[in-house]
Amino acid sequence: MAKAKRNNIEALVNHSVNWLDDSGPDADIAISSRIRLARNIANMPFPIAASEHDKTQVAAAVENAIEKSGSLGDDFFAYDIEQLSEIDRQILLERRLVSREFIASRGGEVLVVKNDESRGVMINEEDHLRLQVLSPGLQLEVVWKIINELDNQLSSSLPYSFDEQLGFLTSCPTNVGTGLRASVMLHLPALRLSGQINAAIQGISKLGLAVRGIFGEGSDNLGNLFQISNQSTMGETEEQIIFRLSKVIRQVINHEKNARASLMENKRYFLLDHIGRAYGTLRRAYILSSAEALESLSALRTGVDLGMFSSVDLRQVNELFKIIHSAHLQRFAGKELNQEERDIFRAKIVRDMLSGKNDE
Amino acid sequence: MAKAKRNNIEALVNHSVNWLDDSGPDADIAISSRIRLARNIANMPFPIAASEHDKTQVAAAVENAIEKSGSLGDDFFAYDIEQLSEIDRQILLERRLVSREFIASRGGEVLVVKNDESRGVMINEEDHLRLQVLSPGLQLEVVWKIINELDNQLSSSLPYSFDEQLGFLTSCPTNVGTGLRASVMLHLPALRLSGQINAAIQGISKLGLAVRGIFGEGSDNLGNLFQISNQSTMGETEEQIIFRLSKVIRQVINHEKNARASLMENKRYFLLDHIGRAYGTLRRAYILSSAEALESLSALRTGVDLGMFSSVDLRQVNELFKIIHSAHLQRFAGKELNQEERDIFRAKIVRDMLSGKNDE
Repeated sequence: MAKAKRNNIEALVNHSVNWLDDSGPDADIAISSRIRLARNIANMPFPIAASEHDKTQVAAAVENAIEKSGSLGDDFFAYDIEQLSEIDRQILLERRLVSREFIASRGGEVLVVKNDESRGVMINEEDHLRLQVLSPGLQLEVVWKIINELDNQLSSSLPYSFDEQLGFLTSCPTNVGTGLRASVMLHLPALRLSGQINAAIQGISKLGLAVRGIFGEGSDNLGNLFQISNQSTMGETEEQIIFRLSKVIRQVINHEKNARASLMENKRYFLLDHIGRAYGTLRRAYILSSAEALESLSALRTGVDLGMFSSVDLRQVNELFKIIHSAHLQRFAGKELNQEERDIFRAKIVRDMLSGKNDE
Repeated sequence: MAKAKRNNIEALVNHSVNWLDDSGPDADIAISSRIRLARNIANMPFPIAASEHDKTQVAAAVENAIEKSGSLGDDFFAYDIEQLSEIDRQILLERRLVSREFIASRGGEVLVVKNDESRGVMINEEDHLRLQVLSPGLQLEVVWKIINELDNQLSSSLPYSFDEQLGFLTSCPTNVGTGLRASVMLHLPALRLSGQINAAIQGISKLGLAVRGIFGEGSDNLGNLFQISNQSTMGETEEQIIFRLSKVIRQVINHEKNARASLMENKRYFLLDHIGRAYGTLRRAYILSSAEALESLSALRTGVDLGMFSSVDLRQVNELFKIIHSAHLQRFAGKELNQEERDIFRAKIVRDMLSGKNDE
């Protein structure tokens, strides 16, 4: 029975990330598909009300179930959040493996994650278990199959808190029922450039779906990255939630495609100029804030999608989207950096990663 | 006796330009040195009061004197301004061979110029003759020798209007005496970036010298290019005027050198970022106004001076400074372009000229 590598951030950072792949369906617009399931163990207080002892027991039980199931493969990692430095916690957040609340750590939080980061479990977040599965592109149905199987495997050794009428019971009432939150991260530069993004967001919201920035609620939409997810977890089956969400997302993708085609046809030089300047900045700046880096990378990604850059591929751009964040930068530098130093180092990393690439 | 090629703008545009050379003294800061002499022919009314017939006579006499003297070499050009299209007149202005007033043309204006544009005569501008000599870098003494010889050669066959007390008589009293205006075009990016330029200009003005943009009075200082010239043409000999002006200019050059060194030492990344971004814009933009082009080229020139770009040389940058102007662009395009089309074509020319060059 495979055991998790413990508190080794280096192992995580050095392993390739499944969802950064550019081979997923609609990869030019859909970065990744994610589903998480909220689960709790019967007859144990929710983490917010649990003692240290309770949480330790929960973590041990869940880790044991994961090991027994073999569902994270032979090579997977476990992180005791309390044991991690501030930067290592940020690394997990920047890799979208944990929530802000989780790494704030009231004690007892454990992340268990597969080496390629495609699936994992947050233990003792708001609920005892937060199962998460991530895949590149738009493929919620595939993700649902994977997470459903993971859930079934764990439930065979963990007595879930479940009510015949309500479904899965959760710490917060907004998750009761399926406990399911499905979301897709979309790159929507043309909708923003053509001034249609706010109308699109309003339309999506009216359908009972949520639109948020890449790091969840309250984060803004730098880099034109938007997460669209279901709001409601009750009254529909998991398949219905996913079907409805996928349908809307396909519409948004078409909307974005039309906006790109329209810009290329009617505002060609405006678009090329926007993309070219952003690439020039990434290639040549010596001081680069994370906000400007995200915005410029968004434009570069658009250029890659439009075939303007022969030797930059989506995977590299996705990789840059990850590495420009503060904690990753500092880990890469091998030391703590203040904001000014980060902006200088970020510019250097981006210049280095993009130099030697072909021109438009 | 060599005859001028007449009204052939193509011949001018296709010949290399002496003063764009980068081999002059202090070429990193001093672009070019220029002297012009205002002269008039005795017993002829000044151009502003002259009849068509008078002006034709003057032009014939001056052209004849130039031919006889051989002072513009074997290959030189003559342009009857009235015969030129608007764009061709602008070409002469953008090449700094004529004044705005001259190409506005009240009739009878003729430019005679050596093939490398290092020396020439405007006939029937404000005065009958405006002799002009231009050299790369800071070398007013050399320029003075050349123009003095040219002046002597012409005066042997042209009866100049001269007063023993006042010196050379001119149409405007501000030129009476020596009729000499010496100016040096300086590139002063560090003085501007470090916020010292206004104090420098005020200091220079207090010494009785003028500071202007590259196209004379009223033109602004886009591209950080400044012309410093003498204001007064009386009370000093030509040598004294030039000595005093050169001395001040050498001080300004030192001031700029110190500002560059100080930026490199104390604000290194700010400076590198400024230059890198400008180069990125020049390399990648698809829409480029002439103002932004000038500003970006100024930064690129600074980078070349600082050794940041191994395979862009000052001559290329000087060449770009010339070609980005509207008339040159349209001549290059082979057709008239509106402003939007010019901005797009300008971006393309600059991208093409700089592409394939090495990185920082």
